Amino acid sequence: MNKYQKTENPHLSTKSVGLVGLGLMGTSIATNLLLSDYSVKAIAPIPSDFETARTQIEKQLFHSESLGLLNKPVAEYLKEIKISYDYSELKDCFLVMECVIEDFDIKVDIYNKIEACVDEHAIIGTNTSAIPISSLQEHLKYPDRFVGIHWAEPAYATRFLEIICGEKTDLEKANFLFNTAKSWGKEPTLLRKDIRGFITNRLMYAVYREGLALEQDKKASIEDLDKCFRYDVGSWISLMGIFQRMDYIGIDHFSKMLDKNLPNLSNCEEIPPIMAELLEVKARGIYSQKGLYEYTAEEAKHWEESFAEFNNEMYHLANKYPYEFKSKNDNHGK
Amino acid sequence: MNKYQKTENPHLSTKSVGLVGLGLMGTSIATNLLLSDYSVKAIAPIPSDFETARTQIEKQLFHSESLGLLNKPVAEYLKEIKISYDYSELKDCFLVMECVIEDFDIKVDIYNKIEACVDEHAIIGTNTSAIPISSLQEHLKYPDRFVGIHWAEPAYATRFLEIICGEKTDLEKANFLFNTAKSWGKEPTLLRKDIRGFITNRLMYAVYREGLALEQDKKASIEDLDKCFRYDVGSWISLMGIFQRMDYIGIDHFSKMLDKNLPNLSNCEEIPPIMAELLEVKARGIYSQKGLYEYTAEEAKHWEESFAEFNNEMYHLANKYPYEFKSKNDNHGK
Repeated sequence: MNKYQKTENPHLSTKSVGLVGLGLMGTSIATNLLLSDYSVKAIAPIPSDFETARTQIEKQLFHSESLGLLNKPVAEYLKEIKISYDYSELKDCFLVMECVIEDFDIKVDIYNKIEACVDEHAIIGTNTSAIPISSLQEHLKYPDRFVGIHWAEPAYATRFLEIICGEKTDLEKANFLFNTAKSWGKEPTLLRKDIRGFITNRLMYAVYREGLALEQDKKASIEDLDKCFRYDVGSWISLMGIFQRMDYIGIDHFSKMLDKNLPNLSNCEEIPPIMAELLEVKARGIYSQKGLYEYTAEEAKHWEESFAEFNNEMYHLANKYPYEFKSKNDNHGK
Repeated sequence: MNKYQKTENPHLSTKSVGLVGLGLMGTSIATNLLLSDYSVKAIAPIPSDFETARTQIEKQLFHSESLGLLNKPVAEYLKEIKISYDYSELKDCFLVMECVIEDFDIKVDIYNKIEACVDEHAIIGTNTSAIPISSLQEHLKYPDRFVGIHWAEPAYATRFLEIICGEKTDLEKANFLFNTAKSWGKEPTLLRKDIRGFITNRLMYAVYREGLALEQDKKASIEDLDKCFRYDVGSWISLMGIFQRMDYIGIDHFSKMLDKNLPNLSNCEEIPPIMAELLEVKARGIYSQKGLYEYTAEEAKHWEESFAEFNNEMYHLANKYPYEFKSKNDNHGK
């Protein structure tokens, strides 16, 4: 049984999704779409990606098979992707997603090429996590059809997907995409206004600010701050999120606590000194084996592997506890 | 094989821990201590708790057995707890923990009774999550031995434990307790200074502030904020915590992002309007079936059950991914 359900664009009766960019993220998105029984028309602007993309996607499909995500043989899924240099392949797609490098001019050039081929009702998305949707949007012929689509890695084995409206995005189109994303096996979120940092990042920046302020004041160590999230927050966050937890414990309790504590929280607007000092010595984290922690080469490798494995466990765990209540509240912008 | 390892107090060569208060939290802590092969001397100041505590603990031990946490029959563990009204039972304990209701005067009265019985080297702990350790500490004969010990619920099936120093707490005693807590199957954290809200709460207050500011500005819905934490943050937080994640992605990346985004974060010091409005109509959350979400009676029950079940899954998952690196950094206050 396939858990995915197809959502059709009222204007384009096709099951084809276009992709431009077949790097790490692009191939991973392609795999997700194939798994959801969509046809994929993929453009590889970089020749080396063109060479390796199919192999990469095949590998991811076999990985998905090992995770129990397939309903038919890998070869059947692979039939549904066409990789090309030719943008005219995108003409029937109801949606085209760009996932190339974070370069403004390159992206805009790609949007122009896409718009020259697709139907006027087709939606155009970007996977950017750094450039404001509203500023990219200015360079489209039909800016209302342009939407941010922020995937988590690996796209085919995570349930997160953030849909971001720019100032000129048509909310109806964003909502259509929101529903479509459910047919990709996602629990999508919608950011109605294009804010810097999107949702998750923005909330986590607040955590970093407060955590690093506690560290700076020698109130708690980096290790202990991490343990609080690993073992305390981690024991409920993937079930309840932050606000369902608030309902669970009691609004009255949190109201008292916030009243007492908000005035004590950090309001710092500058980069915490500990980060500035690390950058000074080019300590970038696991990549350079030195960051807030230090790592041996073996430990660095261990983190890569553990993350892939853990992420898979959480994906399956999340599927056991679906976000089932109050889906009637998913009427964004009403 | 028992994963717990005994840590001895250099001054008191005993394996006895005292507990005062046998409500929900007290019994759960007692069960954790029994599972870790400690003897428990428990004082039940409330007669109704005295009546039910043993049955409650027995039930929790059977629950622990079903979770695969036992090395011997339930009856063997139960032999190691003595429940009494008599504080003199505490005399040999190297540690006595108070876990009664959040009432300042009742707590202080209990500390006086404890101090009248125990050895001068015994550590006295409190499970308060609302009263500053430093203010309680003032009322002890030997304030340096007084420590906050903040457990998560259920104590016997969570790895989180927060140890909090008051202003006069002896850091050596807190560190001793930190190490002892490992023999209880915990991944303890140490808060060197008594700050309001402790560590986890404090960091989460920063999240609530930012999240509710986004909701207020109609940038994201409560549902979508929850999904971000459930499916995005949830896919890595229990593996990496917040700062190991920063090392994983790259300090340089976060530095740029924080530089851009810190000035945009909420610095609000007042209770968000949405919470004030809910309290106005006595909406307390799941308990009253109305909070940030609405709940049917069936849904409210479902949350209770799901949480117990999910918490158990995360406990086992956390055990598969221990906090193994950099334990040499656990030299607090050096």
